[in-house]
Amino acid sequence: MATMKDIADKLGISLGTVSKGLNGGKDISEDLRKTILDTAVEMGYINRKALREDMRRIALFVENMDYEEEGSFGYDIVMGFQKASFSEKWNFSVIPLSHEIQSDNKYESFMLQEKYSGAFFIGLSLDDPWTEQLRTTTIPTVLLDNAIEKNPMVSSVGTDSTEGIDAAIQYLTSLGHEKIAFLNGSAGSFISDDRMTAYLSSMARYGLNVDPNLAVYGYFVADCAPYHVPGFIDRGATAILCGNDLIASGVIKTINEMGLSVPDDISVIGFDDIPIAETLKPALTTIRQSRTGIGKCAYFTLYSLINGVPISKSLLRPEFIIRDSVAVAKPRIAAKRENDPDSVMFVNPDLYAHFSRINMM
Amino acid sequence: MATMKDIADKLGISLGTVSKGLNGGKDISEDLRKTILDTAVEMGYINRKALREDMRRIALFVENMDYEEEGSFGYDIVMGFQKASFSEKWNFSVIPLSHEIQSDNKYESFMLQEKYSGAFFIGLSLDDPWTEQLRTTTIPTVLLDNAIEKNPMVSSVGTDSTEGIDAAIQYLTSLGHEKIAFLNGSAGSFISDDRMTAYLSSMARYGLNVDPNLAVYGYFVADCAPYHVPGFIDRGATAILCGNDLIASGVIKTINEMGLSVPDDISVIGFDDIPIAETLKPALTTIRQSRTGIGKCAYFTLYSLINGVPISKSLLRPEFIIRDSVAVAKPRIAAKRENDPDSVMFVNPDLYAHFSRINMM
Repeated sequence: MATMKDIADKLGISLGTVSKGLNGGKDISEDLRKTILDTAVEMGYINRKALREDMRRIALFVENMDYEEEGSFGYDIVMGFQKASFSEKWNFSVIPLSHEIQSDNKYESFMLQEKYSGAFFIGLSLDDPWTEQLRTTTIPTVLLDNAIEKNPMVSSVGTDSTEGIDAAIQYLTSLGHEKIAFLNGSAGSFISDDRMTAYLSSMARYGLNVDPNLAVYGYFVADCAPYHVPGFIDRGATAILCGNDLIASGVIKTINEMGLSVPDDISVIGFDDIPIAETLKPALTTIRQSRTGIGKCAYFTLYSLINGVPISKSLLRPEFIIRDSVAVAKPRIAAKRENDPDSVMFVNPDLYAHFSRINMM
Repeated sequence: MATMKDIADKLGISLGTVSKGLNGGKDISEDLRKTILDTAVEMGYINRKALREDMRRIALFVENMDYEEEGSFGYDIVMGFQKASFSEKWNFSVIPLSHEIQSDNKYESFMLQEKYSGAFFIGLSLDDPWTEQLRTTTIPTVLLDNAIEKNPMVSSVGTDSTEGIDAAIQYLTSLGHEKIAFLNGSAGSFISDDRMTAYLSSMARYGLNVDPNLAVYGYFVADCAPYHVPGFIDRGATAILCGNDLIASGVIKTINEMGLSVPDDISVIGFDDIPIAETLKPALTTIRQSRTGIGKCAYFTLYSLINGVPISKSLLRPEFIIRDSVAVAKPRIAAKRENDPDSVMFVNPDLYAHFSRINMM
């Protein structure tokens, strides 16, 4: 393991300068500070202070998600993490994660400089600059709804999509639904692909055909609904499963604007159970993620990593919440309209190729 | 929540008798004791003593696995669990799990009687009498290499088969292997199906065809090798992946008895990295499960369940251990022999149907 002296020798600078670089001293240039930190990381220098029990620090990076207001998705996750870590004397900081921080700092250099022993990322995207660096990091790191293959220092936490979506499809089939559309969140996100896989495999499990025009990616916002819902209805869908509750709220609005009713004409199911779900009209049937549970699970997982237990992933049970937005299927005749490619974003071609041979119409 | 008085009223017996039944008093009949315990469970009676911190008790049930000798698979798991739970004042008992215990007691009644707050099962089979009761249990329960769908009180822990087998197949393909056979463990076990799925999906990932005669279930013992290895070799396999290290030891022995050499003629990979793996000749390349890690992970997971965090499953990273039993592929001509159905147990038909349309020869 490298010492401060090794770093000083390698860079041909004094021990005092290395110390200033590592400990945030003021009178060295920003460039030199970065060089020192990056060299320390490359040489495997471990900051012993970060390991002292009374100074244990964890970073919670939050991106693409509200977390400051009570009831927001991120808030409950942060609270859960805080509750689980509270009794064990961890200090943690919530850090809004910008592309700027990531461009200005290497991940490990940032962690070393700030003396964090580990991190939990909420909302990191696959195209974030630090994502690539996570493939080889040696810092205990937990990701929500994202996974890094084969790096034992990085764990994934999230909700078991397979079980949640299976509960929804099972419930819909018990009420006679067969043409079940899926309006997913954004393409290219780990969690969207996970939910699409879950949808396709659950449809296969109940012997239902998948029409590729009914299994599409949108975005994780209500406004994507008008682009897809009319097409679903033309093709005879009797139920629409949504990638999250916001999408579901847009779907209900679009259906109403078309002069149809939820659930009498079309059933709708969300995902997440955010606070608006039960105030929608009709109150939304949805797949609940335990946000506090995710935060607690993330802490247990990070604690395990820090203690040398290489957890690959931990998944939480979803809870299927039955409210008023689903009814017995009302069979409808599909309009004989050709597919309009402009209005439909097809399912990820790889996933689709995988499943289409199994349960294509 | 039911009280002892509720139980007494329901059964028409005295409070003192109920107390004797719940607390192991001697002067009541065994039949009455069971009736009292079963009624307590049905009515949701919770033994407050079991929740007192200084009396917290956990049961570790072990079945179908050696655990008493150092170096045995179960021993390290038990030690890992003990190490992780040690600092938190849990008392735990290791209980060999027989069919007799299960037939004589309902699971929840046994747990209530012995005042256990939760349990970890190592080696439970799907056909065990208690497995069905786990579908609805409200007692925090963690299972190794088994899963119960949709019960938030039951978690699964194990090693990430997908990642481990993917590392093995990737390594073999990098050395030119294409005809890679898989001699799995016993059919009908959760973990065998998990590993078969991982094998099929990894073969598809690297664009390799699967010959159903090369993807078979055996048993988790060395002696199953002679029944399958000659057929694999006739069909041109250049590498054999095994469901565990014991199978791999039998495979190497069979290959040697056929006058062939490992790894010059055939490469062999195991699973587990039990102590014999590195003493085999040649030393076995294998997918290591961290047994201590599994024990620790099981404790963290059980602790989470007890604290109301409904973890569905936690998986540990495997580690791919490269030793001497794999070499560059030596292409061999498949003998033109018809499949002999008596000597081959085909892959689970459901799994096979699922994947065969994707990557059939």
